[in-house]
Amino acid sequence: MQYFAAPLQNLIEEFEKLPGIGSKTAQRLAFFVLNQPMEKAQKFADAIVSAKKNLCYCRDCRNLSDKEVCSICDNQTRDHSVICVVENPRDVIQIERTNEFKGVYHVLHGAISPMDNIGPDDITIKELMTRISGGNIKEVIMATNPNLEGETTAMYISKLVKPFGVNVTRIAHGVPVGGELEFADEVTLSKALKGRVEI
Amino acid sequence: MQYFAAPLQNLIEEFEKLPGIGSKTAQRLAFFVLNQPMEKAQKFADAIVSAKKNLCYCRDCRNLSDKEVCSICDNQTRDHSVICVVENPRDVIQIERTNEFKGVYHVLHGAISPMDNIGPDDITIKELMTRISGGNIKEVIMATNPNLEGETTAMYISKLVKPFGVNVTRIAHGVPVGGELEFADEVTLSKALKGRVEI
Repeated sequence: MQYFAAPLQNLIEEFEKLPGIGSKTAQRLAFFVLNQPMEKAQKFADAIVSAKKNLCYCRDCRNLSDKEVCSICDNQTRDHSVICVVENPRDVIQIERTNEFKGVYHVLHGAISPMDNIGPDDITIKELMTRISGGNIKEVIMATNPNLEGETTAMYISKLVKPFGVNVTRIAHGVPVGGELEFADEVTLSKALKGRVEI
Repeated sequence: MQYFAAPLQNLIEEFEKLPGIGSKTAQRLAFFVLNQPMEKAQKFADAIVSAKKNLCYCRDCRNLSDKEVCSICDNQTRDHSVICVVENPRDVIQIERTNEFKGVYHVLHGAISPMDNIGPDDITIKELMTRISGGNIKEVIMATNPNLEGETTAMYISKLVKPFGVNVTRIAHGVPVGGELEFADEVTLSKALKGRVEI
Protein backbone atom coordinates (compact mmCIF):
# COMPACT_ATOMS: atom_id res chain seq x y z
CA MET A 1 0.00 0.00 0.00
CA GLN A 2 1.21 3.47 -0.84
CA TYR A 3 0.90 6.09 1.86
CA PHE A 4 2.83 9.01 0.42
CA ALA A 5 1.78 11.09 -2.55
CA ALA A 6 3.34 9.54 -5.67
CA PRO A 7 6.13 12.09 -6.35
CA LEU A 8 7.24 11.87 -2.73
CA GLN A 9 7.08 8.08 -2.69
CA ASN A 10 9.15 8.08 -5.86
CA LEU A 11 11.80 10.36 -4.37
CA ILE A 12 12.00 8.23 -1.22
CA GLU A 13 12.48 5.12 -3.35
CA GLU A 14 15.27 6.82 -5.29
CA PHE A 15 17.08 7.65 -2.05
CA GLU A 16 16.57 4.08 -0.81
CA LYS A 17 18.57 2.81 -3.78
CA LEU A 18 21.70 4.55 -2.47
CA PRO A 19 24.11 2.36 -0.49
CA GLY A 20 23.68 2.45 3.28
CA ILE A 21 20.43 4.42 3.08
CA GLY A 22 17.50 2.62 4.73
CA SER A 23 13.85 3.53 4.44
CA LYS A 24 13.82 5.86 7.48
CA THR A 25 16.86 7.79 6.30
CA ALA A 26 15.46 7.92 2.77
CA GLN A 27 12.30 9.51 4.17
CA ARG A 28 14.32 12.03 6.14
CA LEU A 29 16.39 12.98 3.10
CA ALA A 30 13.33 13.27 0.87
CA PHE A 31 11.58 15.56 3.36
CA PHE A 32 14.74 17.62 3.66
CA VAL A 33 14.84 18.12 -0.11
CA LEU A 34 11.15 19.04 -0.08
CA ASN A 35 11.71 21.66 2.58
CA GLN A 36 14.36 23.37 0.49
CA PRO A 37 13.63 26.11 -2.04
CA MET A 38 13.14 25.00 -5.63
CA GLU A 39 16.47 26.36 -6.86
CA LYS A 40 18.41 24.29 -4.32
CA ALA A 41 16.58 21.12 -5.29
CA GLN A 42 17.23 21.94 -8.93
CA LYS A 43 20.93 22.46 -8.19
CA PHE A 44 21.09 19.04 -6.53
CA ALA A 45 19.37 17.38 -9.48
CA ASP A 46 21.65 19.16 -11.95
CA ALA A 47 24.74 18.07 -10.02
CA ILE A 48 23.73 14.43 -10.44
CA VAL A 49 23.18 14.67 -14.17
CA SER A 50 26.20 16.89 -14.75
CA ALA A 51 28.57 14.59 -12.85
CA LYS A 52 27.33 11.66 -14.87
CA LYS A 53 27.48 13.55 -18.16
CA ASN A 54 30.76 15.44 -17.80
CA LEU A 55 33.04 12.89 -16.17
CA CYS A 56 35.19 10.45 -18.05
CA TYR A 57 38.35 8.48 -17.31
CA CYS A 58 41.70 10.17 -17.80
CA ARG A 59 43.41 8.84 -20.92
CA ASP A 60 46.62 8.21 -18.99
CA CYS A 61 45.88 7.34 -15.37
CA ARG A 62 42.20 6.24 -15.69
CA ASN A 63 41.22 8.48 -12.81
CA LEU A 64 37.87 10.29 -13.03
CA SER A 65 38.32 13.53 -14.92
CA ASP A 66 36.30 16.20 -16.65
CA LYS A 67 38.93 16.50 -19.37
CA GLU A 68 40.60 13.93 -21.63
CA VAL A 69 43.74 14.17 -19.48
CA CYS A 70 43.19 14.80 -15.76
CA SER A 71 44.69 17.79 -13.96
CA ILE A 72 47.31 15.63 -12.26
CA CYS A 73 48.58 13.97 -15.45
CA ASP A 74 48.39 17.34 -17.18
CA ASN A 75 50.53 19.02 -14.52
CA GLN A 76 54.07 19.27 -15.91
CA THR A 77 55.56 20.20 -12.51
CA ARG A 78 54.77 16.70 -11.26
CA ASP A 79 57.21 13.83 -11.64
CA HIS A 80 55.86 11.67 -14.46
CA SER A 81 58.52 9.01 -13.86
CA VAL A 82 56.93 7.87 -10.58
CA ILE A 83 53.55 6.12 -10.79
CA CYS A 84 51.52 5.43 -7.68
CA VAL A 85 49.10 2.54 -8.33
CA VAL A 86 45.82 2.70 -6.38
CA GLU A 87 42.58 0.76 -6.43
CA ASN A 88 40.11 3.60 -6.89
CA PRO A 89 39.73 7.38 -7.33
CA ARG A 90 39.06 7.91 -3.62
CA ASP A 91 42.54 6.59 -2.86
CA VAL A 92 44.00 9.26 -5.13
CA ILE A 93 42.28 11.91 -3.04
CA GLN A 94 43.51 10.39 0.20
CA ILE A 95 47.11 10.42 -1.03
CA GLU A 96 46.79 13.92 -2.51
CA ARG A 97 45.63 15.13 0.91
CA THR A 98 48.99 14.14 2.40
CA ASN A 99 50.71 16.63 0.08
CA GLU A 100 53.65 14.21 0.12
CA PHE A 101 53.43 12.70 -3.32
CA LYS A 102 54.54 14.62 -6.38
CA GLY A 103 54.38 11.84 -8.96
CA VAL A 104 51.40 10.65 -10.99
CA TYR A 105 48.81 7.94 -10.41
CA HIS A 106 47.32 4.89 -12.01
CA VAL A 107 43.81 3.90 -10.96
CA LEU A 108 43.10 0.16 -11.25
CA HIS A 109 39.36 0.42 -10.55
CA GLY A 110 39.42 -2.64 -8.34
CA ALA A 111 41.77 -5.37 -7.20
CA ILE A 112 42.31 -8.96 -8.25
CA SER A 113 39.82 -11.07 -6.34
CA PRO A 114 39.16 -14.61 -7.55
CA MET A 115 36.39 -14.89 -4.93
CA ASP A 116 34.49 -12.07 -6.64
CA ASN A 117 35.46 -13.26 -10.10
CA ILE A 118 37.70 -10.24 -10.69
CA GLY A 119 40.79 -11.23 -12.65
CA PRO A 120 43.75 -9.19 -13.93
CA ASP A 121 41.85 -8.39 -17.13
CA ASP A 122 38.98 -6.80 -15.22
CA ILE A 123 41.09 -3.96 -13.83
CA THR A 124 43.31 -1.51 -15.71
CA ILE A 125 46.56 -3.51 -15.52
CA LYS A 126 46.89 -3.58 -19.32
CA GLU A 127 46.72 0.22 -19.44
CA LEU A 128 49.37 0.42 -16.71
CA MET A 129 51.68 -1.89 -18.63
CA THR A 130 51.25 0.21 -21.78
CA ARG A 131 52.39 3.27 -19.82
CA ILE A 132 55.38 1.41 -18.39
CA SER A 133 56.44 -0.09 -21.70
CA GLY A 134 56.39 3.45 -23.07
CA GLY A 135 59.56 4.00 -21.01
CA ASN A 136 60.69 6.88 -18.80
CA ILE A 137 59.24 5.27 -15.67
CA LYS A 138 61.63 4.98 -12.74
CA GLU A 139 59.41 3.77 -9.92
CA VAL A 140 56.02 2.18 -9.45
CA ILE A 141 54.61 2.53 -5.92
CA MET A 142 52.00 -0.10 -5.12
CA ALA A 143 49.41 1.64 -2.90
CA THR A 144 46.67 -0.95 -3.15
CA ASN A 145 44.74 -1.75 0.02
CA PRO A 146 46.55 -3.66 2.79
CA ASN A 147 44.17 -6.63 2.51
CA LEU A 148 44.27 -9.96 0.69
CA GLU A 149 43.06 -8.60 -2.64
CA GLY A 150 45.32 -5.55 -2.48
CA GLU A 151 48.40 -7.60 -1.62
CA THR A 152 47.66 -10.11 -4.36
CA THR A 153 47.28 -7.32 -6.89
CA ALA A 154 50.50 -5.66 -5.72
CA MET A 155 52.43 -8.93 -6.07
CA TYR A 156 50.91 -9.67 -9.48
CA ILE A 157 51.72 -6.24 -10.89
CA SER A 158 55.23 -6.17 -9.42
CA LYS A 159 56.03 -9.41 -11.27
CA LEU A 160 54.88 -7.87 -14.54
CA VAL A 161 56.69 -4.58 -13.99
CA LYS A 162 60.09 -5.77 -12.78
CA PRO A 163 61.26 -7.17 -16.16
CA PHE A 164 61.11 -3.58 -17.48
CA GLY A 165 63.86 -2.66 -15.00
CA VAL A 166 61.46 -0.42 -13.10
CA ASN A 167 61.76 -0.10 -9.33
CA VAL A 168 58.60 -1.47 -7.63
CA THR A 169 57.85 -0.43 -4.04
CA ARG A 170 55.01 -1.08 -1.62
CA ILE A 171 53.66 1.45 0.90
CA ALA A 172 54.71 0.68 4.48
CA HIS A 173 52.58 -1.36 6.83
CA GLY A 174 52.58 -0.40 10.49
CA VAL A 175 50.61 1.00 13.38
CA PRO A 176 48.44 3.97 12.43
CA VAL A 177 49.54 7.33 13.83
CA GLY A 178 47.37 8.39 16.77
CA GLY A 179 46.32 4.82 17.43
CA GLU A 180 47.18 2.76 20.46
CA LEU A 181 49.35 -0.36 20.40
CA GLU A 182 46.79 -2.05 22.62
CA PHE A 183 44.28 -2.03 19.77
CA ALA A 184 46.64 -3.00 16.95
CA ASP A 185 46.21 -6.55 15.64
CA GLU A 186 49.15 -8.97 15.71
CA VAL A 187 49.76 -8.93 11.96
CA THR A 188 49.98 -5.14 11.84
CA LEU A 189 52.19 -5.07 14.91
CA SER A 190 54.53 -7.71 13.53
CA LYS A 191 54.77 -5.74 10.24
CA ALA A 192 55.44 -2.57 12.23
CA LEU A 193 58.27 -4.32 14.10
CA LYS A 194 59.81 -5.74 10.93
CA GLY A 195 59.58 -2.36 9.23
CA ARG A 196 61.18 -0.43 12.10
CA VAL A 197 63.42 2.48 11.13
CA GLU A 198 66.23 4.27 12.99
CA ILE A 199 65.34 7.50 14.73
CA MET B 1 42.38 22.68 -2.42
CA GLN B 2 40.21 20.76 -4.78
CA TYR B 3 41.17 17.17 -5.48
CA PHE B 4 38.20 15.87 -7.42
CA ALA B 5 37.20 16.91 -10.92
CA ALA B 6 34.75 19.82 -10.64
CA PRO B 7 31.48 18.00 -11.50
CA LEU B 8 32.31 15.26 -9.01
CA GLN B 9 33.31 17.74 -6.30
CA ASN B 10 30.05 19.56 -6.92
CA LEU B 11 27.98 16.38 -6.57
CA ILE B 12 29.79 15.45 -3.36
CA GLU B 13 29.07 18.90 -1.93
CA GLU B 14 25.40 18.56 -2.81
CA PHE B 15 25.21 15.24 -0.95
CA GLU B 16 27.04 16.79 2.02
CA LYS B 17 24.23 19.31 2.41
CA LEU B 18 21.80 16.51 3.28
CA PRO B 19 21.19 15.95 6.99
CA GLY B 20 23.32 13.25 8.60
CA ILE B 21 25.55 12.86 5.54
CA GLY B 22 29.22 13.51 6.28
CA SER B 23 31.99 13.97 3.75
CA LYS B 24 32.92 10.27 3.56
CA THR B 25 29.33 9.16 3.02
CA ALA B 26 28.82 11.95 0.49
CA GLN B 27 31.81 10.63 -1.47
CA ARG B 28 30.46 7.10 -1.33
CA LEU B 29 27.03 8.21 -2.57
CA ALA B 30 28.51 10.34 -5.34
CA PHE B 31 30.65 7.45 -6.60
CA PHE B 32 27.64 5.17 -6.44
CA VAL B 33 25.66 7.54 -8.64
CA LEU B 34 28.61 7.78 -11.05
CA ASN B 35 28.79 4.02 -11.36
CA GLN B 36 25.15 3.80 -12.37
CA PRO B 37 23.95 4.03 -15.96
CA MET B 38 22.93 7.48 -17.19
CA GLU B 39 19.20 6.72 -17.22
CA LYS B 40 19.21 5.77 -13.53
CA ALA B 41 21.03 8.96 -12.58
CA GLN B 42 18.57 10.92 -14.69
CA LYS B 43 15.65 9.20 -12.94
CA PHE B 44 17.08 10.17 -9.56
CA ALA B 45 17.53 13.79 -10.65
CA ASP B 46 14.02 13.88 -12.09
CA ALA B 47 12.54 12.49 -8.87
CA ILE B 48 14.04 15.39 -6.91
CA VAL B 49 12.69 18.06 -9.23
CA SER B 50 9.35 16.35 -9.68
CA ALA B 51 8.76 15.92 -5.94
CA LYS B 52 9.54 19.58 -5.40
CA LYS B 53 7.42 20.72 -8.35
CA ASN B 54 4.38 18.51 -7.98
CA LEU B 55 3.82 18.45 -4.24
CA CYS B 56 1.69 20.97 -2.38
CA TYR B 57 -0.14 21.03 0.93
CA CYS B 58 -3.63 19.56 1.08
CA ARG B 59 -6.22 22.36 1.28
CA ASP B 60 -7.89 20.68 4.26
CA CYS B 61 -5.36 18.76 6.36
CA ARG B 62 -2.12 20.51 5.20
CA ASN B 63 -0.50 17.14 4.55
CA LEU B 64 1.79 16.83 1.53
CA SER B 65 -0.25 16.01 -1.53
CA ASP B 66 0.03 15.97 -5.31
CA LYS B 67 -3.56 17.19 -5.62
CA GLU B 68 -5.41 20.17 -4.10
CA VAL B 69 -7.14 17.78 -1.68
CA CYS B 70 -5.10 14.78 -0.52
CA SER B 71 -6.25 11.20 -1.07
CA ILE B 72 -7.18 10.80 2.61
CA CYS B 73 -9.34 13.94 2.83
CA ASP B 74 -10.81 13.07 -0.56
CA ASN B 75 -11.80 9.58 0.61
CA GLN B 76 -15.52 9.70 1.44
CA THR B 77 -15.45 6.30 3.18
CA ARG B 78 -13.31 7.80 5.96
CA ASP B 79 -14.86 9.43 9.02
CA HIS B 80 -14.50 13.18 8.51
CA SER B 81 -15.81 13.90 12.01
CA VAL B 82 -12.66 12.58 13.69
CA ILE B 83 -9.46 14.58 13.22
CA CYS B 84 -6.10 13.17 14.29
CA VAL B 85 -3.65 16.04 14.86
CA VAL B 86 0.01 15.21 14.15
CA GLU B 87 3.22 17.20 13.96
CA ASN B 88 4.41 16.23 10.50
CA PRO B 89 3.59 14.18 7.37
CA ARG B 90 5.75 11.26 8.51
CA ASP B 91 3.48 10.81 11.52
CA VAL B 92 0.52 10.44 9.16
CA ILE B 93 2.32 7.55 7.46
CA GLN B 94 3.16 5.91 10.77
CA ILE B 95 -0.48 6.01 11.88
CA GLU B 96 -1.75 4.90 8.45
CA ARG B 97 0.52 1.86 8.73
CA THR B 98 -1.38 0.69 11.80
CA ASN B 99 -4.55 0.40 9.68
CA GLU B 100 -6.45 1.33 12.87
CA PHE B 101 -7.48 4.88 12.15
CA LYS B 102 -10.33 5.63 9.77
CA GLY B 103 -10.73 9.35 10.41
CA VAL B 104 -8.84 12.25 8.81
CA TYR B 105 -5.71 14.13 9.81
CA HIS B 106 -4.43 17.59 10.49
CA VAL B 107 -0.71 18.21 10.04
CA LEU B 108 0.67 21.00 12.24
CA HIS B 109 4.12 21.11 10.60
CA GLY B 110 5.85 21.46 13.94
CA ALA B 111 5.04 21.91 17.60
CA ILE B 112 4.96 24.89 19.93
CA SER B 113 8.51 25.39 21.21
CA PRO B 114 9.37 28.72 22.84
CA MET B 115 13.01 27.58 23.01
CA ASP B 116 13.15 27.40 19.21
CA ASN B 117 11.01 30.50 18.80
CA ILE B 118 8.09 28.49 17.41
CA GLY B 119 4.79 29.90 18.63
CA PRO B 120 1.18 28.87 17.94
CA ASP B 121 1.08 31.11 14.84
CA ASP B 122 4.04 29.28 13.27
CA ILE B 123 2.19 25.98 12.95
CA THR B 124 -1.17 25.27 11.30
CA ILE B 125 -3.34 25.76 14.42
CA LYS B 126 -5.37 28.52 12.74
CA GLU B 127 -6.22 26.17 9.85
CA LEU B 128 -7.25 23.49 12.35
CA MET B 129 -9.55 25.91 14.18
CA THR B 130 -11.15 26.94 10.88
CA ARG B 131 -11.96 23.28 10.19
CA ILE B 132 -13.40 22.80 13.69
CA SER B 133 -15.46 25.98 13.65
CA GLY B 134 -16.92 24.70 10.37
CA GLY B 135 -18.79 22.15 12.53
CA ASN B 136 -19.45 18.42 12.14
CA ILE B 137 -16.33 17.48 14.14
CA LYS B 138 -16.94 15.02 16.98
CA GLU B 139 -13.46 14.23 18.18
CA VAL B 140 -9.95 15.64 17.93
CA ILE B 141 -7.20 13.13 18.74
CA MET B 142 -3.95 14.80 19.78
CA ALA B 143 -1.18 12.60 18.38
CA THR B 144 1.68 15.05 18.81
CA ASN B 145 4.99 13.65 20.03
CA PRO B 146 5.23 12.48 23.66
CA ASN B 147 7.86 15.12 24.50
CA LEU B 148 7.74 18.58 26.05
CA GLU B 149 6.87 20.41 22.83
CA GLY B 150 4.29 17.83 21.78
CA GLU B 151 2.58 17.87 25.19
CA THR B 152 2.55 21.66 25.27
CA THR B 153 1.00 21.76 21.81
CA ALA B 154 -1.59 19.15 22.76
CA MET B 155 -2.59 21.13 25.87
CA TYR B 156 -2.71 24.41 23.97
CA ILE B 157 -4.91 23.05 21.20
CA SER B 158 -7.21 21.19 23.58
CA LYS B 159 -7.98 24.47 25.37
CA LEU B 160 -8.87 26.11 22.06
CA VAL B 161 -10.98 23.20 20.84
CA LYS B 162 -13.01 22.36 23.96
CA PRO B 163 -15.23 25.50 23.84
CA PHE B 164 -16.62 24.16 20.53
CA GLY B 165 -18.02 21.18 22.42
CA VAL B 166 -15.65 18.83 20.62
CA ASN B 167 -14.21 15.81 22.41
CA VAL B 168 -10.40 16.14 22.70
CA THR B 169 -8.34 13.00 23.39
CA ARG B 170 -4.63 12.24 23.69
CA ILE B 171 -2.94 9.05 22.47
CA ALA B 172 -1.99 6.70 25.32
CA HIS B 173 1.43 6.77 26.91
CA GLY B 174 2.88 3.48 28.05
CA VAL B 175 5.58 0.89 27.51
CA PRO B 176 6.23 0.12 23.83
CA VAL B 177 5.11 -3.31 22.65
CA GLY B 178 8.03 -5.70 22.27
CA GLY B 179 10.15 -3.64 24.65
CA GLU B 180 11.35 -4.71 28.07
CA LEU B 181 10.27 -3.12 31.34
CA GLU B 182 13.90 -3.10 32.41
CA PHE B 183 14.68 -0.51 29.77
CA ALA B 184 11.62 1.68 30.22
CA ASP B 185 12.27 5.03 31.89
CA GLU B 186 10.39 5.91 35.10
CA VAL B 187 8.13 8.51 33.53
CA THR B 188 6.93 6.12 30.83
CA LEU B 189 6.48 3.35 33.38
CA SER B 190 4.50 5.58 35.73
CA LYS B 191 2.27 6.66 32.80
CA ALA B 192 1.83 3.01 31.85
CA LEU B 193 0.76 2.17 35.40
CA LYS B 194 -1.67 5.08 35.61
CA GLY B 195 -3.13 4.21 32.23
CA ARG B 196 -3.62 0.52 33.02
CA VAL B 197 -6.73 -1.16 31.56
CA GLU B 198 -8.69 -4.25 32.55
CA ILE B 199 -7.92 -7.42 30.64
